[in-house]
Amino acid sequence: MVSPQPPATSVRIPLGERSYDILIGRGLLDAPESWRGLPTAAIAVIVTNNVVGPLYAARLEASLSVLYPRIIVIELPDGEASKSWDSMSRIFDVLLEAGCDRKTVLFALGGGVIGDLTGFAAASYMRGVPFVQVPTTLLAQVDSSVGGKTGINHPLGKNMIGAFYQPMRVVSDLGTLDTLPRRELCAGLAEVIKYGPIADEPFLDWIETNLPELLAREPSAMAYAIRRSCEIKATVVARDERESGLRAILNFGHTFGHAIEAGLGYGTWLHGEAVGCGMVMAADLSVRLGLISMAESQRIRRIVECAGLPVRGPRLGVGRYFELMRHDKKAAAGEIRFVVIETSGKAAVCSAPDDLVRQVIEANS
Amino acid sequence: MVSPQPPATSVRIPLGERSYDILIGRGLLDAPESWRGLPTAAIAVIVTNNVVGPLYAARLEASLSVLYPRIIVIELPDGEASKSWDSMSRIFDVLLEAGCDRKTVLFALGGGVIGDLTGFAAASYMRGVPFVQVPTTLLAQVDSSVGGKTGINHPLGKNMIGAFYQPMRVVSDLGTLDTLPRRELCAGLAEVIKYGPIADEPFLDWIETNLPELLAREPSAMAYAIRRSCEIKATVVARDERESGLRAILNFGHTFGHAIEAGLGYGTWLHGEAVGCGMVMAADLSVRLGLISMAESQRIRRIVECAGLPVRGPRLGVGRYFELMRHDKKAAAGEIRFVVIETSGKAAVCSAPDDLVRQVIEANS
Repeated sequence: MVSPQPPATSVRIPLGERSYDILIGRGLLDAPESWRGLPTAAIAVIVTNNVVGPLYAARLEASLSVLYPRIIVIELPDGEASKSWDSMSRIFDVLLEAGCDRKTVLFALGGGVIGDLTGFAAASYMRGVPFVQVPTTLLAQVDSSVGGKTGINHPLGKNMIGAFYQPMRVVSDLGTLDTLPRRELCAGLAEVIKYGPIADEPFLDWIETNLPELLAREPSAMAYAIRRSCEIKATVVARDERESGLRAILNFGHTFGHAIEAGLGYGTWLHGEAVGCGMVMAADLSVRLGLISMAESQRIRRIVECAGLPVRGPRLGVGRYFELMRHDKKAAAGEIRFVVIETSGKAAVCSAPDDLVRQVIEANS
Repeated sequence: MVSPQPPATSVRIPLGERSYDILIGRGLLDAPESWRGLPTAAIAVIVTNNVVGPLYAARLEASLSVLYPRIIVIELPDGEASKSWDSMSRIFDVLLEAGCDRKTVLFALGGGVIGDLTGFAAASYMRGVPFVQVPTTLLAQVDSSVGGKTGINHPLGKNMIGAFYQPMRVVSDLGTLDTLPRRELCAGLAEVIKYGPIADEPFLDWIETNLPELLAREPSAMAYAIRRSCEIKATVVARDERESGLRAILNFGHTFGHAIEAGLGYGTWLHGEAVGCGMVMAADLSVRLGLISMAESQRIRRIVECAGLPVRGPRLGVGRYFELMRHDKKAAAGEIRFVVIETSGKAAVCSAPDDLVRQVIEANS
């Protein structure tokens, strides 16, 4: 039994009647106050996977048993393939067979796949039931559990089907990161690093200085990195909940990154690895557009590399990169949208001349 | 070619930034002003079925061709079986293969099945694209196209998976009702009649007087019935968009009605037929609860009967009725919720003693 500790810190996501708190700290899984004030119901359902479930589901169940008379655990296979309609359908089967009603609360215990899937299931079951995110990867704690994007993949495209749907609360227990494989830790750091160039130059300085501590999972460094990441994302999301404009800056590195993921076949590179490399490419594009200096771009490249992430894209061929980027969800009428750095700490969304994009791909893959 | 006529009337649904207009009139399909001001896009997609499509899709396509460079028509099989994940998936396949982006506008041309399905597809494709309802049945024009309820069926329950998602506009062309089978006309009238007892006593008087005109599809009577129904629903929905309270009164007749539909197997009785009979049963329950007089209940029964609807439920057995009602989406923790008439023109939601409910079932089935 891990001894309960009070929540170290929390970040409020201000979205009017859909506002919620992100709790960040060690031992939160076992702390009664992590779950206090959640909606009551006859049944709570924990959705997890077969890697995270055996590690943490029993502890979550023990904490929730005080609040919910009946708790059901659904364990799906680990991996991106679970982000599918088949998994949704399996969740619905269990919910309907158990007689779950509109008050049933869903808990997503796992990384981005479990969070996105469970969120969309919660958004769709009886047109919406409450759900709580319990992210257990760094990537999910700093990115996918904040902002209300939920969804599943379609054979023809990733994250193509989904909803904007906010959780009631996010409980990020830093202790769950102890069991995270190093490769996933690095992938998560890509999204942490991202917040520096797009929104907070001093945070980028801090990351640069504290990368060794972060790679060593030093608790206070991790706590600060996660909190600051959530704060920045919260500010952006609060101003643009449904991604009509500003929110697009959160996709720094994602236009190139998605092309890499799709081009190699999803799962070959982790999402964070592709984003890390994509940020290097987007920084290079920012230089070629005359926005930032070569030195600033090299700095981003160095930080990404020190975080254990790839900085050179796979050789898919220029034509294939273009084809994949034109199919991206953010493209409009075939025009590719890039997030670029205007000055360190400030991002913008723009299109770019094909010729410059070609140079970026040739120089970085 | 039907000659275009100006919109006869419109009803505003006031939902803040999700507000929209319902246009009601003959010839609206062909009138350019029906479509003016809708979001522009490279592609518009018309979702319809194999009964409505051959009758009206070409006319809608002709009108939209002025606004959208490319128009895709998806024709699904007629009937409730199309309200499924398989149909959703087929729509997504077409959208993704055609390169549809977040600006693509979906048009639902058909009855409630097409509207609910297309609405949920629009809500979920890339987390939400604009959609327009073009209802061609009376039921859809007075009920399912107003209020933003979208969804599909699950093998274990009807309408169990879906979203609250508002259309950009509803275009109700009264001319499309000319081809509606009489049985479906009567079923649609059930939802028109509903608005009287729950919200508007004078409207109930008007319906009682004008039933012969409505059954004869007399244009001005139909226009008024549809407009008034939409106005009442709009008022209720505006005050409770996500069905947390007041909106439940729109389910008058639906608790018994859903049990009838499910008990007989969906499609045996039309939804409106089950609701018509359900209203008779709910009115009887209101009498037994001491709320309205026997005469008022008999009056509702007479109007339902004159509209060509069943007033006696199938003999499923009392136990089966209870079992089915306890599984209803609106039930909470197994407690059945009934919409009852407090006084003619005013409804309330309540639970009821099992013994009274048993009497209602025994007396009316």
